[in-house]
Amino acid sequence: MDTATIRELLEHVAGGGLRVDDALERLKRLPFEDLGFAKLDAHRALRRGFPEVILCTGKTPEQIAEIAQRHLEGNANLLATRATPEVFERIKAIAPDATYHEHARAVTVVKNPLPKTGGTILVISAGTSDIPVAEEAAVTADVLGNRVETAYDVGVAGIHRLFGQADKLREASVVIVVAGMEGALPSVVGGLVDKPVIGVPTSGGYGANFGGVTPLLAMLNSCAAGVLVVNIDNGFGAGYAASLINRLSAKNES
Amino acid sequence: MDTATIRELLEHVAGGGLRVDDALERLKRLPFEDLGFAKLDAHRALRRGFPEVILCTGKTPEQIAEIAQRHLEGNANLLATRATPEVFERIKAIAPDATYHEHARAVTVVKNPLPKTGGTILVISAGTSDIPVAEEAAVTADVLGNRVETAYDVGVAGIHRLFGQADKLREASVVIVVAGMEGALPSVVGGLVDKPVIGVPTSGGYGANFGGVTPLLAMLNSCAAGVLVVNIDNGFGAGYAASLINRLSAKNES
Amino acid sequence: MDTATIRELLEHVAGGGLRVDDALERLKRLPFEDLGFAKLDAHRALRRGFPEVILCTGKTPEQIAEIAQRHLEGNANLLATRATPEVFERIKAIAPDATYHEHARAVTVVKNPLPKTGGTILVISAGTSDIPVAEEAAVTADVLGNRVETAYDVGVAGIHRLFGQADKLREASVVIVVAGMEGALPSVVGGLVDKPVIGVPTSGGYGANFGGVTPLLAMLNSCAAGVLVVNIDNGFGAGYAASLINRLSAKNES
Amino acid sequence: MDTATIRELLEHVAGGGLRVDDALERLKRLPFEDLGFAKLDAHRALRRGFPEVILCTGKTPEQIAEIAQRHLEGNANLLATRATPEVFERIKAIAPDATYHEHARAVTVVKNPLPKTGGTILVISAGTSDIPVAEEAAVTADVLGNRVETAYDVGVAGIHRLFGQADKLREASVVIVVAGMEGALPSVVGGLVDKPVIGVPTSGGYGANFGGVTPLLAMLNSCAAGVLVVNIDNGFGAGYAASLINRLSAKNES
Amino acid sequence: MDTATIRELLEHVAGGGLRVDDALERLKRLPFEDLGFAKLDAHRALRRGFPEVILCTGKTPEQIAEIAQRHLEGNANLLATRATPEVFERIKAIAPDATYHEHARAVTVVKNPLPKTGGTILVISAGTSDIPVAEEAAVTADVLGNRVETAYDVGVAGIHRLFGQADKLREASVVIVVAGMEGALPSVVGGLVDKPVIGVPTSGGYGANFGGVTPLLAMLNSCAAGVLVVNIDNGFGAGYAASLINRLSAKNES
Amino acid sequence: MDTATIRELLEHVAGGGLRVDDALERLKRLPFEDLGFAKLDAHRALRRGFPEVILCTGKTPEQIAEIAQRHLEGNANLLATRATPEVFERIKAIAPDATYHEHARAVTVVKNPLPKTGGTILVISAGTSDIPVAEEAAVTADVLGNRVETAYDVGVAGIHRLFGQADKLREASVVIVVAGMEGALPSVVGGLVDKPVIGVPTSGGYGANFGGVTPLLAMLNSCAAGVLVVNIDNGFGAGYAASLINRLSAKNES
Amino acid sequence: MDTATIRELLEHVAGGGLRVDDALERLKRLPFEDLGFAKLDAHRALRRGFPEVILCTGKTPEQIAEIAQRHLEGNANLLATRATPEVFERIKAIAPDATYHEHARAVTVVKNPLPKTGGTILVISAGTSDIPVAEEAAVTADVLGNRVETAYDVGVAGIHRLFGQADKLREASVVIVVAGMEGALPSVVGGLVDKPVIGVPTSGGYGANFGGVTPLLAMLNSCAAGVLVVNIDNGFGAGYAASLINRLSAKNES
Amino acid sequence: MDTATIRELLEHVAGGGLRVDDALERLKRLPFEDLGFAKLDAHRALRRGFPEVILCTGKTPEQIAEIAQRHLEGNANLLATRATPEVFERIKAIAPDATYHEHARAVTVVKNPLPKTGGTILVISAGTSDIPVAEEAAVTADVLGNRVETAYDVGVAGIHRLFGQADKLREASVVIVVAGMEGALPSVVGGLVDKPVIGVPTSGGYGANFGGVTPLLAMLNSCAAGVLVVNIDNGFGAGYAASLINRLSAKNES
Repeated sequence: MDTATIRELLEHVAGGGLRVDDALERLKRLPFEDLGFAKLDAHRALRRGFPEVILCTGKTPEQIAEIAQRHLEGNANLLATRATPEVFERIKAIAPDATYHEHARAVTVVKNPLPKTGGTILVISAGTSDIPVAEEAAVTADVLGNRVETAYDVGVAGIHRLFGQADKLREASVVIVVAGMEGALPSVVGGLVDKPVIGVPTSGGYGANFGGVTPLLAMLNSCAAGVLVVNIDNGFGAGYAASLINRLSAKNES
Repeated sequence: MDTATIRELLEHVAGGGLRVDDALERLKRLPFEDLGFAKLDAHRALRRGFPEVILCTGKTPEQIAEIAQRHLEGNANLLATRATPEVFERIKAIAPDATYHEHARAVTVVKNPLPKTGGTILVISAGTSDIPVAEEAAVTADVLGNRVETAYDVGVAGIHRLFGQADKLREASVVIVVAGMEGALPSVVGGLVDKPVIGVPTSGGYGANFGGVTPLLAMLNSCAAGVLVVNIDNGFGAGYAASLINRLSAKNES
Repeated sequence: MDTATIRELLEHVAGGGLRVDDALERLKRLPFEDLGFAKLDAHRALRRGFPEVILCTGKTPEQIAEIAQRHLEGNANLLATRATPEVFERIKAIAPDATYHEHARAVTVVKNPLPKTGGTILVISAGTSDIPVAEEAAVTADVLGNRVETAYDVGVAGIHRLFGQADKLREASVVIVVAGMEGALPSVVGGLVDKPVIGVPTSGGYGANFGGVTPLLAMLNSCAAGVLVVNIDNGFGAGYAASLINRLSAKNES
Repeated sequence: MDTATIRELLEHVAGGGLRVDDALERLKRLPFEDLGFAKLDAHRALRRGFPEVILCTGKTPEQIAEIAQRHLEGNANLLATRATPEVFERIKAIAPDATYHEHARAVTVVKNPLPKTGGTILVISAGTSDIPVAEEAAVTADVLGNRVETAYDVGVAGIHRLFGQADKLREASVVIVVAGMEGALPSVVGGLVDKPVIGVPTSGGYGANFGGVTPLLAMLNSCAAGVLVVNIDNGFGAGYAASLINRLSAKNES
Repeated sequence: MDTATIRELLEHVAGGGLRVDDALERLKRLPFEDLGFAKLDAHRALRRGFPEVILCTGKTPEQIAEIAQRHLEGNANLLATRATPEVFERIKAIAPDATYHEHARAVTVVKNPLPKTGGTILVISAGTSDIPVAEEAAVTADVLGNRVETAYDVGVAGIHRLFGQADKLREASVVIVVAGMEGALPSVVGGLVDKPVIGVPTSGGYGANFGGVTPLLAMLNSCAAGVLVVNIDNGFGAGYAASLINRLSAKNES
Repeated sequence: MDTATIRELLEHVAGGGLRVDDALERLKRLPFEDLGFAKLDAHRALRRGFPEVILCTGKTPEQIAEIAQRHLEGNANLLATRATPEVFERIKAIAPDATYHEHARAVTVVKNPLPKTGGTILVISAGTSDIPVAEEAAVTADVLGNRVETAYDVGVAGIHRLFGQADKLREASVVIVVAGMEGALPSVVGGLVDKPVIGVPTSGGYGANFGGVTPLLAMLNSCAAGVLVVNIDNGFGAGYAASLINRLSAKNES
Repeated sequence: MDTATIRELLEHVAGGGLRVDDALERLKRLPFEDLGFAKLDAHRALRRGFPEVILCTGKTPEQIAEIAQRHLEGNANLLATRATPEVFERIKAIAPDATYHEHARAVTVVKNPLPKTGGTILVISAGTSDIPVAEEAAVTADVLGNRVETAYDVGVAGIHRLFGQADKLREASVVIVVAGMEGALPSVVGGLVDKPVIGVPTSGGYGANFGGVTPLLAMLNSCAAGVLVVNIDNGFGAGYAASLINRLSAKNES
Repeated sequence: MDTATIRELLEHVAGGGLRVDDALERLKRLPFEDLGFAKLDAHRALRRGFPEVILCTGKTPEQIAEIAQRHLEGNANLLATRATPEVFERIKAIAPDATYHEHARAVTVVKNPLPKTGGTILVISAGTSDIPVAEEAAVTADVLGNRVETAYDVGVAGIHRLFGQADKLREASVVIVVAGMEGALPSVVGGLVDKPVIGVPTSGGYGANFGGVTPLLAMLNSCAAGVLVVNIDNGFGAGYAASLINRLSAKNES
């Protein structure tokens, strides 16, 4: 509700075409709707197909099922991350068409698939143990309506493996780079492409890896300009942000 | 140099139109140019107007002047970050049209201004002491050919100040949020807009702020999906990444 | 026992109304009682209804049951925090009227309910996973004789949810804000109200959350003046301190 | 502006007594004023005498002078913390009646002294080197309209010194405890009084003190319930929060 | 083997009373025995009754049993710390007279009790959950031939409990202070007595306690001179060092 | 493929002896093969007997078995580190001649034993609980074709035990020193020998050991020049690096 | 004042031999004097010659001079640690016989030298840059009435230098070991002697030394039982504690 | 002095050819010389030309000059690291032929140049600001008698620059890789070569670089096997260790 709408409303009141009570009711929602931000709940209902997201960590299966139920009643799509098989069973009991992405540890319920728009999001990972996080990013980007490509096990210790992905790197509009250990891969990728690179540190190392702190710090200190970072193991966050970026081009597509 | 070009080259050799020595010389550069990545040095020469960047920290004024000289001889634009007034004097002696952005602590030499493309990059900051980093981001985004808007001193302790910037927030394609202290602003902004948000933690606090570690951690743990993070005080990195993102829409503009 | 009382005692001795042995016995307790501090054990017996508190962490069920037994023999109220269901069973065996607050993981035995005094303590939480700590604070404040209101799941990523609690915020005399992730909520609340705000960081995040260190640091660095902080997950401490604050107004009530 | 006021406004519009443009103008301010929070800027003008606060750290003397000028034009009281003598000179040039509190490193300009209300705020410090922070707390509490008492150099290594302050401890409504080194004093005080205790860690130690991290952690882990903590060296924050707490009793005074 | 012994040996060689081979054999052990340090293995055999110590952490029950067997064959006393009940069963199978100190998680086999010498070692603890570490210290000091007194649950939050132990404090020659949480107790004790105080931080807290790092740092930063510190939970180390200190007076006893 | 080879190739093309398509095919592999680095995959096939290595941590038994299968089909030797007994069973099902090194937690399949070359690698450890890491280093060095000696339980608290290994220390060409606790052993060894010393910190301590951080830091700060460090518990890395060093002398042997 | 004294006092009151007012006056001092702790201020006056100590860090020269003046008026000995030459000048102006120990950065004023009692305190240091801290320990121990020996530059990288000090090590009753870098020396010393060893980490390293944290952690994790630790650079604390230990034997001397 | 020598000595004694006193004198030096370690002081005199090393950090110019004087009187070569120009002047006053390596901040006095032996040590650095540390490594390796090559400014953000150094990488026997920022270069190099790689993290970054901790951790977690690490900025240590490694091949050269 922008200024023009409020003026119109007031003119309706002044002209007698709108009762004070009805106007009041609409104005009461002003403090937030007036701001026009796209993400407010009321607005969200309009963007059909955009999934509701549940981070399962720290919630009981009961709580998750309850939240899922509420969302699915609204006929929304659903993405549940960090979901155990038990959580999947709970959601499946509510939504029989739910899918479990085992590697990504994610559950999706897609009632109204979003059309694929914008360019391609490329998800690459350094090692085998980074795949769960990479898959979480890929599933997230996919369910949010993006074309997704992946290239796994292309870490810097055998840099030719990365170079073998030159085509995919050239064609992507955003690159998500998932890496543990020393977290060097985003820097190398960031030095090769002139597109946004989102680094996702993973917690899979040992010793002085400190649960992913080492690759996190490495990515924050990347000597390649243009590397953006999300929290350790936050594949969802990377997929979500990449989707926001990719939508930028989508908007300008038509 | 892509496969077609190499084939053409070989055919010239086969046909006698290119001497082996000349072909060899060109092929010697193959290992990298062949990959077709846009950022390689040779390629860079083609993208006229794209500035060379010097991070002045850890370099002597002599080294900086020498590097600047080399770049400017190539007729490139130049951006020097973390530049002291002394560094500015050195560069000005070489390039009399150099500009010193005092708040941003940056020097720019713009010989061939890049055309403004894509949407608008909005740079907002939480407090007065965050302005230098915010300005570094703004100057960077500007010299890289973006429309830039700013909104400073809109921290969460007086959240109405942020809401007063609703128009700018709505219109931006990317939002850079610079904040020190507890680094809460990116989360609030990320909750209001559905665009990429780049958080830049600053080091201006004291005590348990640990030179910006607190806002850095806060931004990495943002409860608002879509918040991306760069290193503490890394206004340049945020401006650079925002520019890469903003160019995505630019590409699709024409 | 203040100076006047000692003088009186000595005068009784001088006058022969008090035997030296009896006077000696009373004086032996002097070093502490003399200081007149309200919290000393002897004094505590006088403040009927004020609960004895047991932090169960690090104690065996046997030890807890033994301590509870001792307190309950003294007819005191009891609050056991971080209590497992097993601990509850142990206490229930001693005190059949014990109540288990499942979300708060707390056991209460209220023999002499304290009258509700002072203003209202508002407990708000950012997310679903912060509820156990918020409930611990609420149960603590309740058993200590305070009116308690709660408002859960009002985190900053959807700031309108917080604004929807404007009435509760206006009416509270103290606000306890429980938040994990980036811990931004106390800052936003502290910017809206001019009352004491007690921030309670929670440990529910992952990666660079470091078991609640991130929200702890964020709260300590709050840009909103007036935010006070307790240890990670310390709902009890927040409820206890809020009670001490709320009693201040209570004292002035009559 | 509450619902009743909006209804009245709309009725004026409906009745023709208020022009649409004027109504619009008033409604545009709705998003925040409507919430009724006491701290909003518009409201602040009404609370005459409440000082504007400038944290000088991270601001240039020019910026500080400019902000001070703006506030003082509004006839407000002023508190500038972490102020160097140079900053004091700058403010004095604008406000000749400015006072420099050397130990507290604070500047105050008090045009309309606030009346002293509520109980007494006691500020105690463990060692000589904690005095600047303790004084910052005391000056803050004083300028905010509180009765303030102090007791310095009463650290736990000679615990009789603390006990010598029994009267002050008994009479205070809030106790601010400033301590560096191992930060044990708030625990001992918290064990003696049943009032809110605000611990302020200081950065004055060496070695494994880590710039005040040790006393900060100690205070957060206090075995005495009711100890609240602010950031290292944050005397202002402690004084401000203590004032909010002390005002609670003040409100109930009349 | 001191210089005199070597000279004697050489004279025997010179005089023909000792064969070169035998002399060589003895000299080969020179590098260490010559130094005369009391703790060398050879020497140790002479000090009958001094227990062999096994830290069970990081060793398998098999390894522990094997080491115990070897020591016990030498008729030595034995102290095994951090011993699980399973470890106790293993040792008991070898040495039926082994004793399990449940609270201390220690096993002792005392074949030749050491006579009690020197003064008394006092072990005090702040809270109930510190008792296992305190008991480890007490058992260690006891088996090493010291008189040991204990006083548990005398933390600073109720400081009169500590003062109630004045007699024990006065009479001890060394005081071991075991404390978790904020680790303030050694400072208060160190301020009351003029004897060596050994602080033992424990890991029993939560949140910003960081597994005992908080009390460790507090003890290292104690404002009371004379406080010495051992590793977190290192009751054995404290008991051992206290024993070395206490033996100093013992030596001078006779 | 070096410059001479490319020239030759081009001359073949120029002379008509090589078809453009065939030349193109070969040139396409240029980016990496041209560099001539020994470790590239293609090259690796030539170095028969050099084992493929699988770090089992973070991989499922299925993934490990699959990778092992692939390598063993290529008739390679195999080293799997951090292998559980379950992993061993899986590999044994594929390769019946697989060996499980229980202490080292490693599986080896040696089809073509590498000849022993170069000097001797000495692996020493400070304590009993360091043996698994020491054994991982020893097994690695052995399977990589080195002569290996070991000397365990020679920590600095009984320094004569180390001196008893003087012969082995003198004869080794590289020394791997595995130590936990305070990690002092590499410094002492580094002060005794003039050969490369590789320190391996272990994670076996408790309290302020921080999972091996303490010995890691100690080794990095060694006062003995020439001490090199690998990650905590990284016995494999130490064995591998020692092998690379030892091969240097091997190369010069013939 | 013990129980007997209080009884006597009361009997005097009962018998009329003591006026209530006089008895009251004496009883008012009870809370502390009654406890009989040796270190209380009143008691301290009796122990002539025991120096007053000023830690100069964090105090202004004015504050130090003022405190020194106060102590010296009481005819006490004085020890000022971390004293700059400027502080020395200030103290010298008050006490012309003040001595500046340049290496130790300490000022002493000895009016009544304490007699040397007990055994010898040996202070050894690993490197040249540890000497200031070692000297602070030595000066402290000396002024507190101990025999002091020193042995500097005997670090573990050249362990024969330490062994060259075998005589001093054998003869000392307490050993203070000052070391930076990896802090290994106390472990080696602790393995050689069966006396209390006090480790003092120093802050003189660089990089991953973290201002002395590395040797601090190393000493806390010493594999040699009996190593006690004080704060980084805390030479005074080590000297003071060593003195308390050494006095134990002194007490038993006569 | 080995066993044979001792036997000979004893036989001389037995045969009357050596007086007991003389034999005793020689045997007294046994504890260390007997061990035969190459680095002992006595032995050192034999290895002419091997430089004495002074780490200037933490030493006063006076101390450095004194130590230098002592070494130079022995006609030794000298290497002083972390030397300021002032230190150079001091040394030059003693040794007029001293050389100051400005970038390396090192002083060398080479009286007897060591012959160059073994293979080549390659020192590469990622960025311009890493050059001082790289130069320290290079100067160290050079003065210790090695052939040294360098390749600077070849960081991973422009990975073709590294590949341009393929020849040098192939030819080196040891590679020292100096890198700050995210410290990724050693991993990439370690993946390209099958030689020992020594990573040297540098402290030149900002923000979450933590004075070199980030590249240190990255190198310790390198996914490329064979990467060894030294302390932050420890160019000397890397050069020294590389020299020890390179000498291995030298020994086998002849």
